[in-house]
Formats: sequence, structure tokens, C-alpha cells
Amino acid sequence: MAIITLTTDFGEKDHFVGAIKGAFYTELPEVRIVDISHSVSPFNIPEAAYIIQNAYSNFPKGTIHLIGIDSELNPENKHIAMKLDGHYFVCANNGILSMICAEISPEKIVEINIHDKIVTSFTVLDVFVKVAAHLARGGTLEVIGKTIDGIKPISNLHPFINEEQTQIIGSIIYIDNYGNIITNIKKSFFEKTQRGRKFEIFARNSKFKTIYKKYSDIVDFSKPKEERQDEGRALVVFNSANYLEIAIYKSNTGTVGSASTLLGLQLMDTVTVNFEN
Amino acid sequence: MAIITLTTDFGEKDHFVGAIKGAFYTELPEVRIVDISHSVSPFNIPEAAYIIQNAYSNFPKGTIHLIGIDSELNPENKHIAMKLDGHYFVCANNGILSMICAEISPEKIVEINIHDKIVTSFTVLDVFVKVAAHLARGGTLEVIGKTIDGIKPISNLHPFINEEQTQIIGSIIYIDNYGNIITNIKKSFFEKTQRGRKFEIFARNSKFKTIYKKYSDIVDFSKPKEERQDEGRALVVFNSANYLEIAIYKSNTGTVGSASTLLGLQLMDTVTVNFEN
Amino acid sequence: MAIITLTTDFGEKDHFVGAIKGAFYTELPEVRIVDISHSVSPFNIPEAAYIIQNAYSNFPKGTIHLIGIDSELNPENKHIAMKLDGHYFVCANNGILSMICAEISPEKIVEINIHDKIVTSFTVLDVFVKVAAHLARGGTLEVIGKTIDGIKPISNLHPFINEEQTQIIGSIIYIDNYGNIITNIKKSFFEKTQRGRKFEIFARNSKFKTIYKKYSDIVDFSKPKEERQDEGRALVVFNSANYLEIAIYKSNTGTVGSASTLLGLQLMDTVTVNFEN
Repeated sequence: MAIITLTTDFGEKDHFVGAIKGAFYTELPEVRIVDISHSVSPFNIPEAAYIIQNAYSNFPKGTIHLIGIDSELNPENKHIAMKLDGHYFVCANNGILSMICAEISPEKIVEINIHDKIVTSFTVLDVFVKVAAHLARGGTLEVIGKTIDGIKPISNLHPFINEEQTQIIGSIIYIDNYGNIITNIKKSFFEKTQRGRKFEIFARNSKFKTIYKKYSDIVDFSKPKEERQDEGRALVVFNSANYLEIAIYKSNTGTVGSASTLLGLQLMDTVTVNFEN
Repeated sequence: MAIITLTTDFGEKDHFVGAIKGAFYTELPEVRIVDISHSVSPFNIPEAAYIIQNAYSNFPKGTIHLIGIDSELNPENKHIAMKLDGHYFVCANNGILSMICAEISPEKIVEINIHDKIVTSFTVLDVFVKVAAHLARGGTLEVIGKTIDGIKPISNLHPFINEEQTQIIGSIIYIDNYGNIITNIKKSFFEKTQRGRKFEIFARNSKFKTIYKKYSDIVDFSKPKEERQDEGRALVVFNSANYLEIAIYKSNTGTVGSASTLLGLQLMDTVTVNFEN
Repeated sequence: MAIITLTTDFGEKDHFVGAIKGAFYTELPEVRIVDISHSVSPFNIPEAAYIIQNAYSNFPKGTIHLIGIDSELNPENKHIAMKLDGHYFVCANNGILSMICAEISPEKIVEINIHDKIVTSFTVLDVFVKVAAHLARGGTLEVIGKTIDGIKPISNLHPFINEEQTQIIGSIIYIDNYGNIITNIKKSFFEKTQRGRKFEIFARNSKFKTIYKKYSDIVDFSKPKEERQDEGRALVVFNSANYLEIAIYKSNTGTVGSASTLLGLQLMDTVTVNFEN
């Protein structure tokens, strides 16, 4: 039996997630439902795009990923189902899938058109559950929609690069649970542009000349513990999702602070890389 | 094997929920456990009542719903198990089930009396898990308690209506993840009272004359996007649970604000509907 | 098929937990994954130690407990796997297991040494999932590491006692979802030291002479409800985990306040018990 994952902005408190799971177990008694996240900031498309991109490929092929962010049907917000990389995605056509589609070409995208058969006031429960259950039973995309060629993009997905290839202008697309700051600068893009040159990374008032392999590489383990001052220091890494990340070593948003609070950096802020000429 | 759902105020951090799931898997290796919510505000009976009412009926008949809110046994807080609409509920007799019972008559209610066989310092783990496991194995309510006729009510469940039938005085019973405000005025009650008349809805300093079918009905899609000012506007809908709700279009409690913060409305505040005579 | 539990500081929002679950379902299609907590405060070892200690033993023997807190491999932070009380634990050797090991002797501990076979930038996903999947398939600890004798301790685990045995000096190790304060003074230790003597418990400006059996024992049920002033009163209990706890009856951190906020008590603060001589 297929696995169905859930990524929504429904939060941890309301009845919405429970209602959806109940509906799935009623349709498919043997289904496996896995929560990816219900704490996406309300209506925040880029956040959802980042989360689903970095979670989906760990699941087995054939998994169905249901994404419930800003999914109310209206003339500018259609519903789609997509097959990509052997996985299925069901969501609104609001840009959530554009980050995944920028890396891998979709095998098929359909605009869902079963709405006239469904009375609904709760899109995810009434439409997306039906579509996902249909796919979980082995149904095809063609039955629930008409093929479309492309999807709605989101802006700020890709960093800019100047003509001389001496500067990357990126932006902050995600702030994680540790308050670490994730930019839209991917490792492969950085290295292709760098071509071995020295660089400086600027983020507001902070400057970095080194990209570490892991967080604790900032620690000088040859020094006795009491002489070290590593905790709370800022550093740059390529994170496990291969994005350039500005982190605070052992940050804690509740106590010592985080990269976001200590460096004064917010979603959409600019991060610049200057390469030596 | 039966499904068991969990609705508690235990929060997302502590060991309580994990301990309960462990105990269930020890008793019933094949059970399916589904979280409805663990983020009910501590000891908040109306919130829990609203959540369980709107989640339960999506699950298959035979599902056992365990509710762990204010469940310590004392002379004024007995434990009950109930069958209603083909579903089982296990909780304290503190009003949590009164919202469900106002809609559908229970098939059977028992006051649990197995406590003398159980040493306990953690009610839900020691008593409710035992009872739910008994029911999941096909056991009957009679074995674990004595039949009672009714349950403890909660106040503010129903809106008031004046003698002339020109005014409904409701109150706010829930604030959801988007900061939207849910009143105790149900669609069926509203329409029965309205009888086609025009109306005005008052909530603190806000006034509304329209109830929309869905959130994005507030948007004028004929206008170009840059001329619209929909985001952040307040509107009234009957929500997917059929309660009158005051919402902010694309609200976000963390950024643009929500119905609760922008309109200055709190739990228990009054919402009034005046009908034209 | 074995059960695998997850205890991390990854939070409820990011993709990390979803990625780990996906990886497990890819390795072990039939596995059961149970979340214990993902809301441990970042890098907070004592909190994680308290949570896992009080959750693990409710699960069936053979369960594998994966703990992802401060788990990046470095010269001072090795990875271990342990068998204790019929359960398996996989985590970093950073003190998380010292609270459990203080109660029950481990059957076996190994330092994991499979890292040269694994390219990793996300320890829990790349190393711990592999180790846990190996154990879930019935593999032995010997295959994935070399036996070690002991683990890293955490400080402040045990309360102090003076030479005359008239005073226990404990500290606060956990603050729960209700804002209740949990000390490191266990019931068995307290009673062994008390030997029936009268006592006074001091926590900052608060003094207590009674330890209740349960929270609602503070209520005088013989009085009419409107004459009682129980809600919001502080009391001491041994909690369901058998630790001395300072609680507020029906506390709510969001409204009436909690033991932590009302009594001005924080993690690591001192709680003293004086016994009559």
C-alpha cells in the first residue's frame, strides 16, 4: 500500500489534520500516512517548496505527497497533480512545486477537473484526499485531470549573477528550527561560478571568507575546552540540502540567540558573494 | 484492528504522548494510533470539544477516541466511556463530549469503575489506555463501568436569541491556527432564525453584512492584481465545520496579523447578529 | 517488525523529521515509527535525557530509540549504540543516556565505527537510520561498533545531600508543558533520606511542608465551588515519573501563569529540602 505524506500550514492544534487522516483511513484502511510538516507559516509558498523538496526524495518511489498550502480553488488558483521522479504530488498550482521542477523535469502534470462531482468547503479534505486515494489505488493522472505543460513559478527562486561573473546576489529563502539562515545559493551553482577563486560572503553587517564542511569544524579541538569560544559564533556551511547556510554554532533561538536574531537577517534579505578577479 | 485517536493538552515536547503510544503498542501490537491534537490549551474544555467534534466523524466507525484533558480522577471529575454514532470516546466527565452530544444522541454512556484494580499516577496512561485497549479488542462498555444517563454540560455552548427573534447573541468558542475567529453560531441555526431577512453582524468595532461561501470570494478577480487590496481584509464565512467564522483573507498571526489580533477579539467575546424587522 | 522511536531537537516545521521517516520506510517498508518528541530545546541534553527516560520503558522490548540531539560527529562527540533493559538506543555519546544508565546497567554499549563507509552531511539521516535499520533487521551491535565500557555523564543529574543528612540540595532539570517544575529529587531518594521526619521544601521565595499524592488533592471538595481558591495555587507532588515536582493547580502558561513564571523558577535553579533534626 502506498505511503501518503502531508505538508500543510494547518498547525499543530486545529482539527484539520486529524480530519484528513480520518478521511484517508476511511477510504484506505491500510494506508500509511506520514507527516512532513504542519507548521509551514500560513500561506508561505517558498517555505513549503523548500520543505517538500528536501523531504520527498527520501521516500520510496510511488509515494504520494499531498501539500495543503493556500489551496482554496479560485480562478487564479487551480488544483494540480504531478508525477516527477517516480513520486506523485497533489496541491494547488501556486508555485510550491517550482523548486522541485527546477531540478528535475516532471513526467506529467494534470489540472484536476473533478470538482463538479464534489461538494466542498474544505479543499484538502474533499478534493486532495479523493485524488490521493485514487492514485494510491493505482489510478492514473489522466482520469482526474487534463494534461498541462507547465506550472506557476515562484520568484526569488534563483540567485542573480553579474555579467562579469564576479558577484552572486542571493536571498534568504528559509530560516530553520535553529534560527539558521538558508539562502537560495546551491553548492553546485556556487562552485561553477567560483572556479577556484577566493571569495567573501556578505550578509547585512557580517562577512565570511570560509565555507566549512560541518558545523563543528569551527571548533579548535586542540585547545582545552575552557579556552574555546565556539558556541555562539557565526559560520557558513553548505547544509545537508546543499544550500549555502549561515549558522550560529549551537544556536538556540530561546537562549543564546540564532543567526537570524543575532545577525539581524530575515526571509527575503540579500546575501552577496564577491569573487576575487 | 481498531484505530485509536489521541486529543490532549500534553503539548508537543513532553514524554507523555510517547509514553501513551508505547503503552498501546505493548498492549496491541497491531493498533493504529492517530494524533488529532496535543496542543489544546491546558485545561481548555471548549477548545477540546470543538476539535474532537470536527475530527471524529471522518474516521471509520468503530474508532476509539481518547481525550486527555483535565482527566485526574476526583469526586467532581469522574471518568466516562461513551458510544455515539458508532464511535467510542474515553475521557473525563468534564463537558468535553457535550458539544457532540448536542447534535447526536449517545447510544450508551458508562462511568468507568475499574480504578480499584489500577495503581495510577498518570490517568491517561493507566486508566484510559486500559479502557481503550479493552474496547479495541472488542470488549463491551458494560464490563468497565456502570451505565449513566447524561454527561456534564459546558456553558456558552449555544447562542442566545431574543424573544422577538431579531437578535442572536453568540460567543467566540475557538481561535484557529490562522487566528480566525469561530463563533458558536451554526449555519443551520442562523438560517432558521434568519428566514431570508437582511442582517448585520457585530463583533467589537467591526460590522459585516455579507457571509461569503469561501474565503477567496472576497477577491474581485476581474481587477488586475496590483489594484486589489484583498489580503488582510476581514470577512465572514460559514467554515467547513458550519460555524460562523470571522476571518482575515490570507492572515498570518506572525506577520500581517489575524482576525483575533486585528479586530481585538478573544475567546468568550460576544458576536451579535441583528436581523431586519 | 520492530518499532523505532524518534526523539530530536529538529522542531515541528523543518523537513528533517520527514526526511528521516522517508529513509526508514525506504529501508524497512513495514517498520513502525513513533515520534516521542521533536521539540527538545536545541542542544539541550538534560531535557532529552528526561524525556527519553520517561517514555522508553512503555514500549515493547526490542524497540529501537533513535535520539537526534547534538549528534554531529567530531573528536569529542562520538556515536554510540546501547542495549539496556531489552531496548536499543542510538545517539551521540553526549550524556543523553546517563540518566537511564544511572538506574539500570546497560547490557552492552558500542562506539559506532561504520562512518568510513558513509558519506554524510546529516548525521541522523545517514548514520543513525542505517544503524537503527540494521538493528531492526535483527543485526547485532558488534557489527556496527566496538564495545566500550561507559558513557559520558551529565552534571546536575543527582541532588546533593549534606553530611548530617538533614538537607537535600536539588536542582530543576525540566519544565513541562504546563510550566510545572521538575527537580532531580526522586521519590525513592527522598524517602530514604527522610526516614519519616518532617520537612520543608524551599524554592526561591516559596516554602512547602506537604507533598500531595495527586494535583487535585489540594482541593477541599467539602466546600462549595464558589468558596474555593484552588486554581492557581502552588503545590508539591511526586509526579508520574516519581520526581519531586512543584506545580500550579490547573496552570496555563498562556493565561493564569505557571509554576515557572509565577514562582520565578528556571532550569538549573536550586530546590532545597530541610529535614527536622
